[in-house]
Amino acid sequence: MFTVKNPRYRDRVQQVIDRAAFVKDLGLELIDLGPGWCACGLVVEPRHLQQTHVVHAGVLATLADHTAGAAGSTLLAADEYVLTAEFKINLLRTARGERLVCRAQVLKPGRILSIVESEVFSVTDEAPTLVAKASVTLAVLKTSGAKATPEK
Amino acid sequence: MFTVKNPRYRDRVQQVIDRAAFVKDLGLELIDLGPGWCACGLVVEPRHLQQTHVVHAGVLATLADHTAGAAGSTLLAADEYVLTAEFKINLLRTARGERLVCRAQVLKPGRILSIVESEVFSVTDEAPTLVAKASVTLAVLKTSGAKATPEK
Amino acid sequence: MFTVKNPRYRDRVQQVIDRAAFVKDLGLELIDLGPGWCACGLVVEPRHLQQTHVVHAGVLATLADHTAGAAGSTLLAADEYVLTAEFKINLLRTARGERLVCRAQVLKPGRILSIVESEVFSVTDEAPTLVAKASVTLAVLKTSGAKATPEK
Amino acid sequence: MFTVKNPRYRDRVQQVIDRAAFVKDLGLELIDLGPGWCACGLVVEPRHLQQTHVVHAGVLATLADHTAGAAGSTLLAADEYVLTAEFKINLLRTARGERLVCRAQVLKPGRILSIVESEVFSVTDEAPTLVAKASVTLAVLKTSGAKATPEK
Repeated sequence: MFTVKNPRYRDRVQQVIDRAAFVKDLGLELIDLGPGWCACGLVVEPRHLQQTHVVHAGVLATLADHTAGAAGSTLLAADEYVLTAEFKINLLRTARGERLVCRAQVLKPGRILSIVESEVFSVTDEAPTLVAKASVTLAVLKTSGAKATPEK
Repeated sequence: MFTVKNPRYRDRVQQVIDRAAFVKDLGLELIDLGPGWCACGLVVEPRHLQQTHVVHAGVLATLADHTAGAAGSTLLAADEYVLTAEFKINLLRTARGERLVCRAQVLKPGRILSIVESEVFSVTDEAPTLVAKASVTLAVLKTSGAKATPEK
Repeated sequence: MFTVKNPRYRDRVQQVIDRAAFVKDLGLELIDLGPGWCACGLVVEPRHLQQTHVVHAGVLATLADHTAGAAGSTLLAADEYVLTAEFKINLLRTARGERLVCRAQVLKPGRILSIVESEVFSVTDEAPTLVAKASVTLAVLKTSGAKATPEK
Repeated sequence: MFTVKNPRYRDRVQQVIDRAAFVKDLGLELIDLGPGWCACGLVVEPRHLQQTHVVHAGVLATLADHTAGAAGSTLLAADEYVLTAEFKINLLRTARGERLVCRAQVLKPGRILSIVESEVFSVTDEAPTLVAKASVTLAVLKTSGAKATPEK
């Protein structure tokens, strides 16, 4: 459906995961990816919970945002990168499973903006449950030359 | 401006911060609060950054969301608590400072929903810079009896 | 997938369309509906356009919001109604077709909140083009007794 | 606070209001403007209401979106224009007044994206009541040369 501009996009996305200190610290791992989509997972630990013993919304938001950025990155040229301009997340159900899986799908790629949707599932022995859904607007920037936006 | 229903709301909000494993692990600290508002801070560490060496959007989102929940909690009765139903965050500028401060303000309290706005500032030697702004919808729930929403 | 509580839900949704002055004035028409979903259409007229001769974002937003409310209404009991608490809409492409069609799908029904997604398509002789996507949070209220939220 | 690039920005914004068929048809009128902000008003008519006899969310959304675009337009160069990329609106209270007033303020101008906030008030004999608040992301485009985003 979508055109790949960088034949080495898989390595590129792996780097987006490996080199981001916060998501490494959180425990996020790349599961799989393809043109316009990406899936990441996270094993839920006690440190991810909030006072009510469910997964903190910040963990779900981080997973949704970072996986969206990775999905958007699959369609970039070698000299482009993305930065989240904004996202909205609906917390649909409390997440109590042992594992979270997020699948992000590019809804509309663009030269300047890419719109991506992320679905976060709580996975137990049974079927996965959709616990959150986000829509993410990514700004597409050039690594060299004039910086685009958001500028300082 | 807003009516306080629980005279011990300060202790209550302190608990909302202290007992949430994820924000404790992240390093979030309560700065101050009053009826309808709350301020929290975070010392930026290398583990909070993303691959481009700026603070990860997930850190800003967690800070915005949790401080909003604390602000909403200042107006609750003793048998109520809040859960984030959804939030939207605009990442306005890249956050590079040594410290983040978030101030959340209730825009509209309600029996079932409370709407809160959070502003996240990057603080350096100079003046603080607004780096993100979020609008957060909190569902107000009762701790006993039939659970309200979002239900499982 | 979803349980219908009011066997006369079709009449109910038809009323939601017929009795809303603004969407009648706009030209919105019910196409079809079922448990948890609704489709509405609109013939594009010159009065719907903005200065750049594309359909105004306000028209797309109204169509997305109202169709979402209708979709949420299919799952209500006879004494319930919905009110939009918030929505976010991404304008993906400029809408230039002769006709707009919106399909709204309940993502998560609830006793207090229902989350609905709306997709707006621009329809020409060719295949329909997705021009906007919205996520809508509906507050579920009782027609009698104590009013829920948003309260005045 | 903000720098004006086009000394004739007032005429420009007046055109943004006058030439947009949908908002003219709706009854939207420019009240005042300055660098980075704009205020518009609307006299509420029966055709603006929904089935529950309150102002339709689509009217509030249109007013919030268009006034935001006008506010963003005050800071543009002569060869630039804006297009809404996305917006989120919280409906805080039901709007029942005879008149609506919207004030939009640029939160962060940019070369590619401008972030604007809109507040919609219901005005009666008494003080105005805040009924809705929106955050709007505008894409900044060039009128000539290569089109930016959102592209087809």
